[in-house]
Amino acid sequence: METIPTRMAPLWNEQGLIPVITQDATNGDVLMLAWMNEEALSLTLAEGRAVYWSRSRRQLWRKGETSGHIQKLVAARLDCDGDTLLLKVEQQGAACHTGRRSCFFYQPSKGQWLATTEDQP
Amino acid sequence: METIPTRMAPLWNEQGLIPVITQDATNGDVLMLAWMNEEALSLTLAEGRAVYWSRSRRQLWRKGETSGHIQKLVAARLDCDGDTLLLKVEQQGAACHTGRRSCFFYQPSKGQWLATTEDQP
Repeated sequence: METIPTRMAPLWNEQGLIPVITQDATNGDVLMLAWMNEEALSLTLAEGRAVYWSRSRRQLWRKGETSGHIQKLVAARLDCDGDTLLLKVEQQGAACHTGRRSCFFYQPSKGQWLATTEDQP
Repeated sequence: METIPTRMAPLWNEQGLIPVITQDATNGDVLMLAWMNEEALSLTLAEGRAVYWSRSRRQLWRKGETSGHIQKLVAARLDCDGDTLLLKVEQQGAACHTGRRSCFFYQPSKGQWLATTEDQP
């Protein structure tokens, strides 16, 4: 146990990004992990909906802009050392590009990771 | 919507690591985010308890080895593109080095991130 600082600031990695865990505020399911730069975080807090940084497209990614599967911000939290964010959201439709509600659907089986039929364990 | 591959493999980043979200299997709280290399993942699955890679100490990190706050593995999932893991665990004691159960306890307030009194939103 140690004294907890009363304030914390996001710690951006060498690419200027921070990982973001997105959780369904309704049932607690972990939906996805994505990344934000400083602008994406500012927009998320200002607009009340998740805006990420797409590392593959190298541009801001307004989640649901084309699919309609937006994530309305319910709560945001930064962790103890400032290097990870947690969002609680109201998820419209599916968080995953596969159409599943959550991105976490491969489970370990005899040294392989196989698609499950359900979204979550 | 697209065809979902029946198998997936962990995608290690340029440092040979993958981010791991750890969730309380009992109440769904997100506890922490940590990293694993291939050995840590193998040990986690073989031993049924969370073993991470400490990026600061550059060594395997058997969670709870000194604190007793071990994480018993309940389920593991890999995400749709293989670049993030989710663990559901039975958490003994606190996940956070501050003594809090969850690491996510700073909330946004007027442009700052301030420590909350509760563990989770």
